[in-house]
Amino acid sequence: MQLTTENIQESNSRYVALHQKFFATLASQLEDGGISVEKILSKIRSFQIAVPSWALGAGGTRFGRFGIGGEPRSLEEKIEDIGLLAKLTKSTDAVSLHIPWDIPSDYEAIMQLAKCHNIGFDAVNSNTFQDYGQEKSYKFGSLSHNDPKVREQAVAHNKQVIEVGEKLGSKGLTVWLADGSNFPGQQSFRRALDNTFESLQKIYASMPEDWKLLLEYKPYEPNFYSTVIPDWGTSHLLCRQLGDRAKVLVDLGHHLPNTNIEQIVGILLGQNQLAGFHFNDSKFGDDDLTTGSIKPYQLFLIFLELVAGTEDGCQSWESISWMIDASHNTKDPLEDLMQALVAIKIAYAKSLLVDRVKLTMYQLNGDVVMAQEILQKAFLTDVRPLLKEARLQSGGALEPISIYRQHEIRKQLIQKRGENTRATGL
Amino acid sequence: MQLTTENIQESNSRYVALHQKFFATLASQLEDGGISVEKILSKIRSFQIAVPSWALGAGGTRFGRFGIGGEPRSLEEKIEDIGLLAKLTKSTDAVSLHIPWDIPSDYEAIMQLAKCHNIGFDAVNSNTFQDYGQEKSYKFGSLSHNDPKVREQAVAHNKQVIEVGEKLGSKGLTVWLADGSNFPGQQSFRRALDNTFESLQKIYASMPEDWKLLLEYKPYEPNFYSTVIPDWGTSHLLCRQLGDRAKVLVDLGHHLPNTNIEQIVGILLGQNQLAGFHFNDSKFGDDDLTTGSIKPYQLFLIFLELVAGTEDGCQSWESISWMIDASHNTKDPLEDLMQALVAIKIAYAKSLLVDRVKLTMYQLNGDVVMAQEILQKAFLTDVRPLLKEARLQSGGALEPISIYRQHEIRKQLIQKRGENTRATGL
Amino acid sequence: MQLTTENIQESNSRYVALHQKFFATLASQLEDGGISVEKILSKIRSFQIAVPSWALGAGGTRFGRFGIGGEPRSLEEKIEDIGLLAKLTKSTDAVSLHIPWDIPSDYEAIMQLAKCHNIGFDAVNSNTFQDYGQEKSYKFGSLSHNDPKVREQAVAHNKQVIEVGEKLGSKGLTVWLADGSNFPGQQSFRRALDNTFESLQKIYASMPEDWKLLLEYKPYEPNFYSTVIPDWGTSHLLCRQLGDRAKVLVDLGHHLPNTNIEQIVGILLGQNQLAGFHFNDSKFGDDDLTTGSIKPYQLFLIFLELVAGTEDGCQSWESISWMIDASHNTKDPLEDLMQALVAIKIAYAKSLLVDRVKLTMYQLNGDVVMAQEILQKAFLTDVRPLLKEARLQSGGALEPISIYRQHEIRKQLIQKRGENTRATGL
Amino acid sequence: MQLTTENIQESNSRYVALHQKFFATLASQLEDGGISVEKILSKIRSFQIAVPSWALGAGGTRFGRFGIGGEPRSLEEKIEDIGLLAKLTKSTDAVSLHIPWDIPSDYEAIMQLAKCHNIGFDAVNSNTFQDYGQEKSYKFGSLSHNDPKVREQAVAHNKQVIEVGEKLGSKGLTVWLADGSNFPGQQSFRRALDNTFESLQKIYASMPEDWKLLLEYKPYEPNFYSTVIPDWGTSHLLCRQLGDRAKVLVDLGHHLPNTNIEQIVGILLGQNQLAGFHFNDSKFGDDDLTTGSIKPYQLFLIFLELVAGTEDGCQSWESISWMIDASHNTKDPLEDLMQALVAIKIAYAKSLLVDRVKLTMYQLNGDVVMAQEILQKAFLTDVRPLLKEARLQSGGALEPISIYRQHEIRKQLIQKRGENTRATGL
Repeated sequence: MQLTTENIQESNSRYVALHQKFFATLASQLEDGGISVEKILSKIRSFQIAVPSWALGAGGTRFGRFGIGGEPRSLEEKIEDIGLLAKLTKSTDAVSLHIPWDIPSDYEAIMQLAKCHNIGFDAVNSNTFQDYGQEKSYKFGSLSHNDPKVREQAVAHNKQVIEVGEKLGSKGLTVWLADGSNFPGQQSFRRALDNTFESLQKIYASMPEDWKLLLEYKPYEPNFYSTVIPDWGTSHLLCRQLGDRAKVLVDLGHHLPNTNIEQIVGILLGQNQLAGFHFNDSKFGDDDLTTGSIKPYQLFLIFLELVAGTEDGCQSWESISWMIDASHNTKDPLEDLMQALVAIKIAYAKSLLVDRVKLTMYQLNGDVVMAQEILQKAFLTDVRPLLKEARLQSGGALEPISIYRQHEIRKQLIQKRGENTRATGL
Repeated sequence: MQLTTENIQESNSRYVALHQKFFATLASQLEDGGISVEKILSKIRSFQIAVPSWALGAGGTRFGRFGIGGEPRSLEEKIEDIGLLAKLTKSTDAVSLHIPWDIPSDYEAIMQLAKCHNIGFDAVNSNTFQDYGQEKSYKFGSLSHNDPKVREQAVAHNKQVIEVGEKLGSKGLTVWLADGSNFPGQQSFRRALDNTFESLQKIYASMPEDWKLLLEYKPYEPNFYSTVIPDWGTSHLLCRQLGDRAKVLVDLGHHLPNTNIEQIVGILLGQNQLAGFHFNDSKFGDDDLTTGSIKPYQLFLIFLELVAGTEDGCQSWESISWMIDASHNTKDPLEDLMQALVAIKIAYAKSLLVDRVKLTMYQLNGDVVMAQEILQKAFLTDVRPLLKEARLQSGGALEPISIYRQHEIRKQLIQKRGENTRATGL
Repeated sequence: MQLTTENIQESNSRYVALHQKFFATLASQLEDGGISVEKILSKIRSFQIAVPSWALGAGGTRFGRFGIGGEPRSLEEKIEDIGLLAKLTKSTDAVSLHIPWDIPSDYEAIMQLAKCHNIGFDAVNSNTFQDYGQEKSYKFGSLSHNDPKVREQAVAHNKQVIEVGEKLGSKGLTVWLADGSNFPGQQSFRRALDNTFESLQKIYASMPEDWKLLLEYKPYEPNFYSTVIPDWGTSHLLCRQLGDRAKVLVDLGHHLPNTNIEQIVGILLGQNQLAGFHFNDSKFGDDDLTTGSIKPYQLFLIFLELVAGTEDGCQSWESISWMIDASHNTKDPLEDLMQALVAIKIAYAKSLLVDRVKLTMYQLNGDVVMAQEILQKAFLTDVRPLLKEARLQSGGALEPISIYRQHEIRKQLIQKRGENTRATGL
Repeated sequence: MQLTTENIQESNSRYVALHQKFFATLASQLEDGGISVEKILSKIRSFQIAVPSWALGAGGTRFGRFGIGGEPRSLEEKIEDIGLLAKLTKSTDAVSLHIPWDIPSDYEAIMQLAKCHNIGFDAVNSNTFQDYGQEKSYKFGSLSHNDPKVREQAVAHNKQVIEVGEKLGSKGLTVWLADGSNFPGQQSFRRALDNTFESLQKIYASMPEDWKLLLEYKPYEPNFYSTVIPDWGTSHLLCRQLGDRAKVLVDLGHHLPNTNIEQIVGILLGQNQLAGFHFNDSKFGDDDLTTGSIKPYQLFLIFLELVAGTEDGCQSWESISWMIDASHNTKDPLEDLMQALVAIKIAYAKSLLVDRVKLTMYQLNGDVVMAQEILQKAFLTDVRPLLKEARLQSGGALEPISIYRQHEIRKQLIQKRGENTRATGL
């Protein structure tokens, strides 16, 4: 199944002439506008988004799941899949593991395999929202549970996750706390939050000094009346009290209808409190659709905040973690991830085209019309040639999905792994 | 496990004196206000809400499921559970089957068993949203599928469901069409609707003359960009073109945020187009929480429309189907259903207390303040004694949950059925 | 127009016999359940909710306004109106002034008048969201404005408001900052927030030592893309940095769809960060409808948090400010306020009936069913006799709206003040 | 103030060389992809969107309004403003009048003036949501009012609007019915709908044979509990019963959160029931922001439905009415309208680039990935050169806002009309 560099070059050779024509036109247009194309290309090239280990199989809903075939049966096969993504797109260089689904049996071998695929290990994820054979049930919570023994178990699990991550070179622990309640009265909001803080303190204390804690928030699901950490304000409250290395993780799908997410990003950056992102898109709830497939302008505005906030020195670009977190219910996960990686970089590239000096001037002058024009000008620019050029320069594929289909990779995966495999944890 | 009439009487004997005191006070208060308590009791007693066969086990989310123990392993055991509910609450007299999960192996035996439990067979439900071994996958739709062969299969399935229902004495087919799309472009809205109409026509044509088609709508989930029948308008459009026996089914959880559901109920009644209800409650989406647990005032307003619409002759009360459709993720399903049955009847009883003659007068006079007062007066009245009296008169339990707990029914069920059973289809 | 004590007594005499019967029944029922009726009555009696000076006239929408007739033409007449409310309901004892609409010309006279009506002066409100003749426009912001001169003007205005309040005996300044933007790009989120903080620091510094700053949040309107302080998290962020006397004010209408407001209240109490409440109700946005008219169960749950949080010692009940903030578009404002005052106290009374010891026990046992039952039991209790008894004991009217109508107060107000008066600021 | 053709040519001369370069590149790219640029240009050129007479002044909110200066003081000046828009953008050729604000005193003169500006008269709009001196108040409704005399008055007003429109050459009546209720109980949903239908029947009957009735829907505002025509389903219900010339008007801001508007458009087209559009954009409610400023991808998807539905023969493009309906709270209305006209045509142009043959093929094959790619490909294309070329070919300005600013039109308008004018009806 492995696509070779030669395969990629062969595929690129078909598209490169046309690409170069479009790229030259765009480059000249941008340079005329005072934009350094090389600087932008460099940023696009170096921007890498992690892929979680659970994203390689088909996702589902409470009403069922439709398998895709050829799903990875092991951590090794997950890494192979991400390796392929890395090779084609040059936009991902790390896997984010989910424990207990992905505990390596042989750390050395896994690290060796990952290295072969130019894949590192991003933040590790704990799971205290399901019962997978542990002694005590998480049915009524984990880090927030009223029973100190359940909390201890959940804390211990997080410590174990940190240990796994340490062995692999991860530098962060992502905590998504699903704890909450389904009915008024089921839970004391304050007690649940106090318990959670106490648990997080223990986890935080056990983190290596060069690690960070990425704390998610989410208003609902899988609990449908309340979640212990429902919004950025609560996550921020906890992080501030935990310490400097605890920061807020923004998952794009974890917001109430109509939330201005880009403003939250701006505020968090202004407080040096943004841990990172989980990318996806949605129309209704935590739909976990492909990033950029529903609200691409919002994604652009979010990147504009990120570019502005990092350029203004609030936080460094490197201090922010980037990960895709979507559910592939109807698409081939590998194709879907390629679409997401492209969409994310398109938003990033467009945000880099915004003339921030002029934008500030218009803002200071109360010139709403021109401020909007400046943004629209960047958003309307067709930046696909920039992405292609960046991939070309990095040795990736000009047309990743085309080559993937041409070589019938999914068919090969099905032949190798089987039609009815199910990626761990799904 | 079976609770006897003696058990119930014994339990009631503890509470009846206090009940009679409260009931007498309320009855006198209501009669002083010109309300016939006997008429209201009669309506409360005769109001019966069906329970679906999938409601007896623990539900879950896409993130997992926490079993409750003792879940019914067969259709027989589901009927036994509903029989118990009927005996205790005297508020349910029918089961709504889900095919293919509940196809009886021996129709005579099942009907005999149901009869023993005073349980009839409400509308039957088809399932074309999952793959359960049928030839063609419903991954990309069923009644709306672009492939006529898939549509044929889905139509044939619905016909089979009707056949099952006919043998059992059902008089209706409920169609919840999960078809839709996850991404812009995936589906042609118009083609999908046309295909759906064509499929529904065939199903409608195959229904016995004394059956009705109950057509649900839902804006999202399990599809997250579009659903073929997203709102009552679309369902109504289809029903009107199908024929008089096709009507719109309102599931309380199937609405966008802030929807005025009671108005939809009023409009549908005004058009003689209301097929029935699926009761549940929600805060965020189709949360499938216990009816009345989140928005009891809305439930009251819905019943007010129902009472007004039927009293005004739009439709008869009997022409409307009633069913609970909730997911019991953290509660014992039997206790949860008892809570739901009570909450529904509380809303109904309160709506019966509204002085509609005065209400109309205030409306005609533009007296918004007094119109609100009239509603609040009914809503604020404590009608629990009416429900208890109705149960008492019908031979049910004054305190259904207490007796259920006192006799440790769940423990018995676990002993009999096992800790890790999983109700079919969950 | 002034209703005398005799008028009230005469009215009460018609209703008191029936009231006493109902009250006795309820009291006996509650006492049997171990509840001290006298303690509850005492709490109900002493709970007083302020009325803002802008609430006495008809409100409107951007599409227009329908006058009510007899609206107060001056601060004096506003105080008279609130005095009438106080006399009838014994549930309000303060007016919340809005500057510049309500600057007294003669402080002594106003204070004397207020005293006659048993009315004090609650938190004062500044207005930097409109242009009313001040030098610089607030079209593009006030405390957050990019122009330091506009910020200075807005800060100076707030200082002036404090001065007015000091003279009258107010102890708090409520800041609702409408600043925000209508379009992406119009405003730098971070700069706007920084400017706001700097402005608030100056205002905070100028507050007397025994004052508190009540800082509102609101997601949208009158700006429709972003608001500088959109959510409790942002308000909390600012308050924490300002100092101990800055706290978060919760206006019930200022939330995105489906927000769990009661949880926010609980979290803020747990942080000792709850300044107070603006009561209203809504179905869609900041509808400013009568409190309790749409979601009475939510209001009950909010009061349950308040009772629990204060009983648990997070904050004292007295540390929280209470005000109605609704818009009377179609109802007589005085009648509407009476309905709101009743609805608030109903929610409060019901929350006092919750058996919190049992609730905690059920929570600790993971008994979701019984936790819900405990809440429902309190909510379903008809507490109107408690409110009436409390009013009776305080010398108020058993039936405030009835006596108001019987004496044709609105008609008198129209005769005195005119048909087309318009309350200042509306 | 009037800009001459020479002014425009002079301005264009500065930009035309660069434009031609970009246009040539894009045209060649599109033609290589099998797209006829000339056909697309022709469609863009001929697409004209009406401007309502109330859009030329600053809008506001219930909290106030910030004037823009130089607002038109009369119908004549409104037409002059739209004439300027037409000259610069070549994208609007009609004004949509609002009665009673815009009743001409001299029909001949107005028609002559409009003709001079190449402006025709689009659908006329009635107003039964405000009191402007008519005999009976619309406070509690108009076409739905419980009092037949109010209904008669509202019907008579609509007839008068038709008469005004007839004299001017309009061919449609737009009815936005603001009627509804603020509180549960205030209104009988069914009676209000029945009254409305009866009123609309009379209006419909009085329309000339070549007119159409455009019936809007809106879930809330200015009423905040219910609106008589809250959704497309209700509007469609009424239209179907009224007759073939009554159709549903879609205002983009009149939907609940997360509504899939493009699907509604598709369904209405499939039923031959789409009357037309009111363009605007929003993040929270009926924000009336500039079209395309918040959700440009949604606008593109809507146009894709329009293009598909008309190409497939559901309705002709000409059968659909197009109008901007936004509120200019912080921008110069003329600049804002120019931005909107551009944004609408950008969405239209992009939708014309979608390869619908391939899209259908992918849909039939269940190829979700490629279906999305096809849409993204069109959306990501920078179509600004197409719009500029279309304007150039039509004699409009390459850079409308630049020339408007260069000639300081607003300053001139202020000098001529005054700083504090207020456009009628605002």
